[in-house]
Amino acid sequence: MSAPRRTLPALLAFALAMTCTAAEPAKRPQTMQEILDASTPSDWREPDPENILYLELDSGRVVIELAPMFAPRHVANVRALARAGWYDGLSINRSHDNFVVQWGDADGGDPDKARPLPDTVEDRLPAEFARPADGLAFTLLPDHDGWAPQAGFVAGFPAARDPRAKLAWLTHCYGTVGAGRGMEPDSSLGNELYVVIGHAPRQLDRNITTVGRVIKGMEKLSVLPRGTGLLGFYERREQTVPIRAVRLASEVPAGERERLQVLRTDTATFEALVEARRNRRDDWYLRPAGHIDVCSVPIPVREAPTE
Amino acid sequence: MSAPRRTLPALLAFALAMTCTAAEPAKRPQTMQEILDASTPSDWREPDPENILYLELDSGRVVIELAPMFAPRHVANVRALARAGWYDGLSINRSHDNFVVQWGDADGGDPDKARPLPDTVEDRLPAEFARPADGLAFTLLPDHDGWAPQAGFVAGFPAARDPRAKLAWLTHCYGTVGAGRGMEPDSSLGNELYVVIGHAPRQLDRNITTVGRVIKGMEKLSVLPRGTGLLGFYERREQTVPIRAVRLASEVPAGERERLQVLRTDTATFEALVEARRNRRDDWYLRPAGHIDVCSVPIPVREAPTE
Repeated sequence: MSAPRRTLPALLAFALAMTCTAAEPAKRPQTMQEILDASTPSDWREPDPENILYLELDSGRVVIELAPMFAPRHVANVRALARAGWYDGLSINRSHDNFVVQWGDADGGDPDKARPLPDTVEDRLPAEFARPADGLAFTLLPDHDGWAPQAGFVAGFPAARDPRAKLAWLTHCYGTVGAGRGMEPDSSLGNELYVVIGHAPRQLDRNITTVGRVIKGMEKLSVLPRGTGLLGFYERREQTVPIRAVRLASEVPAGERERLQVLRTDTATFEALVEARRNRRDDWYLRPAGHIDVCSVPIPVREAPTE
Repeated sequence: MSAPRRTLPALLAFALAMTCTAAEPAKRPQTMQEILDASTPSDWREPDPENILYLELDSGRVVIELAPMFAPRHVANVRALARAGWYDGLSINRSHDNFVVQWGDADGGDPDKARPLPDTVEDRLPAEFARPADGLAFTLLPDHDGWAPQAGFVAGFPAARDPRAKLAWLTHCYGTVGAGRGMEPDSSLGNELYVVIGHAPRQLDRNITTVGRVIKGMEKLSVLPRGTGLLGFYERREQTVPIRAVRLASEVPAGERERLQVLRTDTATFEALVEARRNRRDDWYLRPAGHIDVCSVPIPVREAPTE
């Protein structure tokens, strides 16, 4: 940990922001909406259908973008499980207030009743808690993080980085999806998945494998009744929430796919958005914070324009 | 902003924690549960019934502890509104995913239909965004905050402080309750209340008046279906969630009161709890964070022991 290296840039960015504001009282900086309205098509990307997972519930579809660059082995397993229809008919078994919602095989703990994994799935995976930072375009946040030496964004995902250890990882923010594990670090297979539904549990960072992020439909998961059992698990089978199917977008007919675009995080537009959120100028705000944490930065998602 | 003063203690605390661990591999530090199990009666406090608000819903009771030391005028209004039964029969009108749930008079915007305020309520209040830090026992977190010069706890509430401006305020964490306002800073009266149900929206700090914190029943608010209107407001009246009643505990017969105790935040027990959460030693954790943010520190609440 090196305080000066890590803190001074943030302080300078802060001071600079303050100076600019003071220097140009007349010109009101743009709001996030104004920045998005002025965005160009090249500011947006359409995720690869091989990286898009549809979680189909009775309440509708939840869309997850997978992050193979951070957990290639786990994402390969999740894809294989989805292709085999393995998750279909399973259920959401845990809803832990201000923490996570988790789905998988409710009988997974019982060797006699557990749903067998298809041959296309690896039954042993290495922990993928972090990866080499080299080769990743990392958009650095100007502000001090505290949970990590650096925080920012990689390919549209909130992430953190340790320049000395030369490692990067996805941060646990609202909507982050991870692979549940037991006591052993390498006990996750991607057949048990969880999503963060509360205040960012950053203490999980680098303690468990993260595989992606919900980009649409979070409100279908965040409102599920909380489980009253240990760790928020449902106590009775009839309380669990059925999963109709989990499909890769690439396996779904084109006409049934979402046409979503995610704002690129390596653009001047996103940089302006971050600054607009660090120092909110919406007329309602009297005191811009001059700061933001990686989990408070929205990563906009929109329907692909039809023209 | 003064980086060294603010950041070095955190780094030293971190280094120290690491050293201790390396030096004493045999002795496992206590977990939060072990610390709570070893707590003494004096570590706990029973909130003043004058500061406890019961929000009665069809799904059950939500318990809110009011913080008059931070917003005396607003808390006085909330008490008067509860005593007059003003909130009874009104509704929860907003459920904004990863942000807030809000209740009040759905007709409040219509002068002809708005429920009139009782004479015992002030119809004009000053903004109470912050208060003098002097006279407050402030339990300082060892870690850098970023949103404020200092973060910690005051009388069992997550809070922040600016030593140079000599001001303190409640931080917006999961469960924090505030008084909705319009564009004018002094347009809140306590008749429109919101509670944070997502990642801490710290950008609201010092931009709106906070009045307390939910200490029981958050899961009854956090699961409410999200509103599909602007800002998460319900679009149709039948979607709103009825409020049976809002009562001060002091107005409720003793037999119908909750008997809750909240862990004191100015004790060695709480200090140990904070350290146990900064460096999780539960066997499941492989990499203690050596850090925590003010909204990630649990403030334990329990039923008062019967002996």
